[in-house]
Amino acid sequence: MVLELIGLVAFAASGGLAAVRARLDVFGVVVLAMTTALGGGIMRDLLLGVHPPTTLRSWPYLLVPALSGLLVFWAHPQVARLRVAMQLADAVGLGLVVTAGTTTALQHGVPAYTACLIGMTAGIGGGALRDVLLREIPMVLRKEIYAVAALAGAVVVAVGAWLGLPELWGTVVGAALVVTIRLLALWRRWNAPVPKA
Amino acid sequence: MVLELIGLVAFAASGGLAAVRARLDVFGVVVLAMTTALGGGIMRDLLLGVHPPTTLRSWPYLLVPALSGLLVFWAHPQVARLRVAMQLADAVGLGLVVTAGTTTALQHGVPAYTACLIGMTAGIGGGALRDVLLREIPMVLRKEIYAVAALAGAVVVAVGAWLGLPELWGTVVGAALVVTIRLLALWRRWNAPVPKA
Amino acid sequence: MVLELIGLVAFAASGGLAAVRARLDVFGVVVLAMTTALGGGIMRDLLLGVHPPTTLRSWPYLLVPALSGLLVFWAHPQVARLRVAMQLADAVGLGLVVTAGTTTALQHGVPAYTACLIGMTAGIGGGALRDVLLREIPMVLRKEIYAVAALAGAVVVAVGAWLGLPELWGTVVGAALVVTIRLLALWRRWNAPVPKA
Repeated sequence: MVLELIGLVAFAASGGLAAVRARLDVFGVVVLAMTTALGGGIMRDLLLGVHPPTTLRSWPYLLVPALSGLLVFWAHPQVARLRVAMQLADAVGLGLVVTAGTTTALQHGVPAYTACLIGMTAGIGGGALRDVLLREIPMVLRKEIYAVAALAGAVVVAVGAWLGLPELWGTVVGAALVVTIRLLALWRRWNAPVPKA
Repeated sequence: MVLELIGLVAFAASGGLAAVRARLDVFGVVVLAMTTALGGGIMRDLLLGVHPPTTLRSWPYLLVPALSGLLVFWAHPQVARLRVAMQLADAVGLGLVVTAGTTTALQHGVPAYTACLIGMTAGIGGGALRDVLLREIPMVLRKEIYAVAALAGAVVVAVGAWLGLPELWGTVVGAALVVTIRLLALWRRWNAPVPKA
Repeated sequence: MVLELIGLVAFAASGGLAAVRARLDVFGVVVLAMTTALGGGIMRDLLLGVHPPTTLRSWPYLLVPALSGLLVFWAHPQVARLRVAMQLADAVGLGLVVTAGTTTALQHGVPAYTACLIGMTAGIGGGALRDVLLREIPMVLRKEIYAVAALAGAVVVAVGAWLGLPELWGTVVGAALVVTIRLLALWRRWNAPVPKA
């Protein structure tokens, strides 16, 4: 839970910083922070038929991204300087959102491959929404090993559930795999191949 | 009901005029008008699990925005000149959509803060969708006191319900507050603060 | 079913080619292909309250667009040359997605005009999502007789159901009408009127 909120702070900060760069007003910065942090979970719940989405009913999940957005609005030069810490927190957030999303989907009785897709969507949906609202092609479609990391973590959770391992196993190993892939991708500047011209 | 349809006409006209400026064809103008007028209510119903969304099942709610879109297509220079009347109708529409959305959400038994967020989304979602479809950063994130006005109206409805006041009370006072804030914001050219560079 | 998958291949190829033109990476090309092929059906199911959306639970519906996306990634110059075949397959796909969507909506007991709107959305939603993700104004709003063809097919299905004709009747005649309108529009270069300046 605490780890998950740290992840939401990182997601929210990425949304808030993008909004600051786009010169949105204070309200826009807060909305972008909340959308980036919560968008993926809302998509997950819409796909699974959870009404209203869980995060909209839980005030810590609303308050933490909102306050993160306000903080970014006032202190964006300082926040922007914490790049490495933010990338680490973002990787942890991605790992936890993806594994939690996949587990939730499996609990709704969907097939394993459906659960993996929904878990991946939970992880990448918020960032994609952030980019669309700011009139950019979603970063996740253009570069870095981001969605593949999310998908790998989701597959670990699904395989663990299929093997009958305890839920915690999938969460820990899946999230660790996501974090590892993300940090390797950032460190080694891995990008997925682009089409030949 | 009549007031609500007037509000939908204003929402639809704003979508239709934006579509004309973007040089869409007649079908695009009508779709933009309908999307702007109905998008927020559809988002509200998707979040609350009302299937299919109410507005898609009610032919006046479909016909009025569609005809407004056609009217704008043919008479856009005249419609564009009615700027002040349109701004007033838009404010009234916002007030009614927000208060109705918040009331509907409360009737579904969600927490008060969730109802406020959903009511606000109902008010601003259509315009945001209009801007995304036309490849613009949503105006509501960039300028004017629009979303804050919506949120204030939603809070009035939620507080009224919490105090056990009759539903009409929240609707009237909440909508009046939205209209007042919007007109003051337009008259005084209020904008929310933007980040310092 | 085979025809429907051919239609999905055409939808997926249009998404994949657009992604190649936008220089997305291999993952982005596959996601765009899947989004374009499946987006309309997912919108239909979200509006009707089918959780999770049918196409996410059926592996051929996932695998065919994914493989189409990979194929486009590697062989896009060859695929781009098949323009006429692709336009034909796209027309067939549109016809089948629209008629299936309208039939599904009618089975959920919604009014006929609601079913037509939902069937049309199923047909045009994926392409609109493709364009928004690539930061373009949806083509369907700008030119060619695309959405009108979809709407015509949906109306045929609804009228057929109202007359008590067998379901297959509406599917065949509706889809044939969609294909006919689309091919005429392409051949004759029909466009809907744009607003006078």
